[in-house]
Amino acid sequence: MAKHNNNNNGKAQEKDEKKLGITVKKSDNFSEWYTQLCAEQGADLVDTRYGVAGFVVHKPWAFKILRGIYDLLDKEIEEDGHEPLLFPTVIPEENLLKEEEHAGFAPDVFWITHGGNTKLERKLALRPTGETAFYPMYGLWIRSHNDLPFKRFQSRITVFRNEATTRPFLRGREFMFYETHDVFATHKEAMKQIDTDMKIMNEVAYETLKIPFIFFKRPKWDKFLGADDTYASDTIMPDGKRNQCSSTHDLGQNFAKVYDVTFKDKDGKLKYGYQTCFGPGIYRLMAALIAIHGDDNGLILPTAVTPIHIVIIPITFSKKPELTEKVLNKCKQVKELIEKSCFGIKVKLDDEDKSPGYKYNKWELMGVPLRIEIGPREADGDEVTIVNRISREKEKLNLKNIEKELNTHINDFEVMLKKRADEYFKGNTKDADSLEKVKKIIEEHRGFIKVPWCSTEKDGEKCAETLKAETMGGVVSGIKFESPEKPKKDQKCVICGKEAKHIVYVAKSY
Amino acid sequence: MAKHNNNNNGKAQEKDEKKLGITVKKSDNFSEWYTQLCAEQGADLVDTRYGVAGFVVHKPWAFKILRGIYDLLDKEIEEDGHEPLLFPTVIPEENLLKEEEHAGFAPDVFWITHGGNTKLERKLALRPTGETAFYPMYGLWIRSHNDLPFKRFQSRITVFRNEATTRPFLRGREFMFYETHDVFATHKEAMKQIDTDMKIMNEVAYETLKIPFIFFKRPKWDKFLGADDTYASDTIMPDGKRNQCSSTHDLGQNFAKVYDVTFKDKDGKLKYGYQTCFGPGIYRLMAALIAIHGDDNGLILPTAVTPIHIVIIPITFSKKPELTEKVLNKCKQVKELIEKSCFGIKVKLDDEDKSPGYKYNKWELMGVPLRIEIGPREADGDEVTIVNRISREKEKLNLKNIEKELNTHINDFEVMLKKRADEYFKGNTKDADSLEKVKKIIEEHRGFIKVPWCSTEKDGEKCAETLKAETMGGVVSGIKFESPEKPKKDQKCVICGKEAKHIVYVAKSY
Repeated sequence: MAKHNNNNNGKAQEKDEKKLGITVKKSDNFSEWYTQLCAEQGADLVDTRYGVAGFVVHKPWAFKILRGIYDLLDKEIEEDGHEPLLFPTVIPEENLLKEEEHAGFAPDVFWITHGGNTKLERKLALRPTGETAFYPMYGLWIRSHNDLPFKRFQSRITVFRNEATTRPFLRGREFMFYETHDVFATHKEAMKQIDTDMKIMNEVAYETLKIPFIFFKRPKWDKFLGADDTYASDTIMPDGKRNQCSSTHDLGQNFAKVYDVTFKDKDGKLKYGYQTCFGPGIYRLMAALIAIHGDDNGLILPTAVTPIHIVIIPITFSKKPELTEKVLNKCKQVKELIEKSCFGIKVKLDDEDKSPGYKYNKWELMGVPLRIEIGPREADGDEVTIVNRISREKEKLNLKNIEKELNTHINDFEVMLKKRADEYFKGNTKDADSLEKVKKIIEEHRGFIKVPWCSTEKDGEKCAETLKAETMGGVVSGIKFESPEKPKKDQKCVICGKEAKHIVYVAKSY
Repeated sequence: MAKHNNNNNGKAQEKDEKKLGITVKKSDNFSEWYTQLCAEQGADLVDTRYGVAGFVVHKPWAFKILRGIYDLLDKEIEEDGHEPLLFPTVIPEENLLKEEEHAGFAPDVFWITHGGNTKLERKLALRPTGETAFYPMYGLWIRSHNDLPFKRFQSRITVFRNEATTRPFLRGREFMFYETHDVFATHKEAMKQIDTDMKIMNEVAYETLKIPFIFFKRPKWDKFLGADDTYASDTIMPDGKRNQCSSTHDLGQNFAKVYDVTFKDKDGKLKYGYQTCFGPGIYRLMAALIAIHGDDNGLILPTAVTPIHIVIIPITFSKKPELTEKVLNKCKQVKELIEKSCFGIKVKLDDEDKSPGYKYNKWELMGVPLRIEIGPREADGDEVTIVNRISREKEKLNLKNIEKELNTHINDFEVMLKKRADEYFKGNTKDADSLEKVKKIIEEHRGFIKVPWCSTEKDGEKCAETLKAETMGGVVSGIKFESPEKPKKDQKCVICGKEAKHIVYVAKSY
């Protein structure tokens, strides 16, 4: 499985200079554009040459963005009353297998069998997710109704699945993970938590990261095996495929019964808890950020997670050193002015020995929202040039009013980013009331297709199988959780022709 | 190896109420005191009943303290110019074994051999540390002198070693890790970094966490195998044993030659880099915090990492509900006043339905620096009672001057904590100029013993072996890095009687 590409033959070799730039357009070849943008010549997000297929190294720029996403989630999750835990990375075989009939993770699990040269008495699984690690302990910790609601989370961890194919931030054999695991006394409270989870996704993914999504109740045939129901937020990627950015499982009392998660209720009786778990997809949010906001010049980063808000680039001329010094001094002054006046704004002066053109290119690739250019003509005055990463238009920035002007620029950038993403997402949802129309839309456009559907219970699964076969992979994402749409009178299921009970969203999926 | 203690037999069982309190004195039985303090009835830091020996669950209180330690380090490390990375948790076998002769990790490594039911083509190691993961990639990334110094770090991760015996925060099969990996053009710059690493430890461990330590250059026989030299900070635990809280390795060009970490220098020639790596011990700092600051009533937490600075406890009487309401209202007012007036102070109102005595006990166990008590008599006035966790003396707190008064209380607490730790540490260092004296001190007291020593090069190793055998485990920690002490004229090595070249510090070790 492991693949080893680096040239470590133990002697010093000639090395090539690093080259920058993406050679394809996003609209021409999204897949290649995405690959190049993730790599060293792009925004330098990951290195896939680590030597084990599906395991990547996260470079500093990516790590800082991902850490930013974690921080946004931690804030919301803790404010919602969750306490942090850290569990071992390994799960005893018998705990994992106890839940086998529900969860069925075993085929994808990596197994640890040896410590040094000695075979372990019982093999250990690298965690594929947290349920079978958490819940046996919940069985010990939770005693009475006073302990409920019991809300815990685990952040900044990775999980492991032996996937057949991998892609940076979309599917990895080791990938960044986030999980909450909650226990309630009643199913009603559990359902309220699912609503809260959706609101947290709305705050983090949509309002802050500007990733539009729809929160669905999945059809019964596409739920997490151990759950009664699964709820998920899906966005659409530029290749028209659905990207699941979070899931919340309504676990009912299924796991509670297996792992003995009980509490003594006010009436003195011992009862099983109702459980939910929420998994915002750190990787999937990152993939959506890259793919939805990025353009032919590189990444475009929302201000909440960009490692740098403003880069200052001196326009210098190697033949005129006295001008260079003047320009560099002005750049330093402007940097200090911004740091002093604009709280929370992260600013970088790029004084590397490279041409201004190289630097424009580089920081556009990296997705920094704003660029300030300072040349000899601007070294004396109170005005410098500012460029918005989205519009790429040059404007004047008055240094005398810097706090207000920069806030306006940042706000304009955020509004632009959201508007652009909203329009993109709206354009990726179409209606169809027949299989022929569904097939046509999927062929030429993909994205979400709203269709009338017979049933999202088990009896609708057959239609889903037909749909998938007829459309080369189209799947039913589910019914909208908030204000589910009702079919018009007399609308029929696009597959079986029976009366439609729901409007569901169909899309190809990763 | 795995041990499974929980009662998951799939049906609801009677559960006991959780009980609080430590039943032994720290001075009578440090080991038992430490175990109880870490457990559920103590400060509820870890749960060792996870089912796999040596793998523990970190509970919320411990996790928040540990996260605080990580944050302190991240701040210093990033300010020193390190950029964050995240590497895979697994290391390809051939990369690990390439360095076998230097590092020799293989005997303690956990091996992943299967994905699902399929045997992997080549087995993967769970990382025991980062060198053999990082440096093959450094070989690809570092190209020219412009890339140097190259400073990267990895935070908030765990590593895995199949240790024979384990203890919470002292030795685990999976434990929290922190690592920097730096490359320099010259050895001089590498040595400067080692000095900086020491200063970072001084800032974080001593100035902030109030853990006194000595920074040593280890004797050659006790260095990391792959390094030219190892530098380490050691503190002393209450059982007199040395606790290594960090190490920095001067790797010279050893790893660079194995993993091809080269750069094109200004003169156009390809050269090997000089490497250092710094590993502050997250677990070890936590163990020191618990053991050095804690007392018979529980933890005592430095303000920089305590999850709560002040707990407010209402003194209520179940028989007088109208007084209870009045007291609770006052408590809420005081909480809001503190939140509004004192930026950065984390305050909690404990309004759980338990007695004040239970709550005093609980929050003393948890180590919260300050406690405010509000009873019926204080519900009307401008004065409440405040209690310092160390002195446990009651004082009056004037609410009209709350910001200033609370800052004074917190400052007093910090000064007290440092003074206490300094005195403790000073009392744990003695002098000896003969083996007999060393043996006597180790037997009755342990701690550091300063002794004249022949050599810390390879030729001193025999004496170290004799010392260890004669003292039932005493080891040479090394020579002080800053201002190394010189033996007096005519002082002889306590073992071989040859002329002493150094004053070294001897202690038993974990």
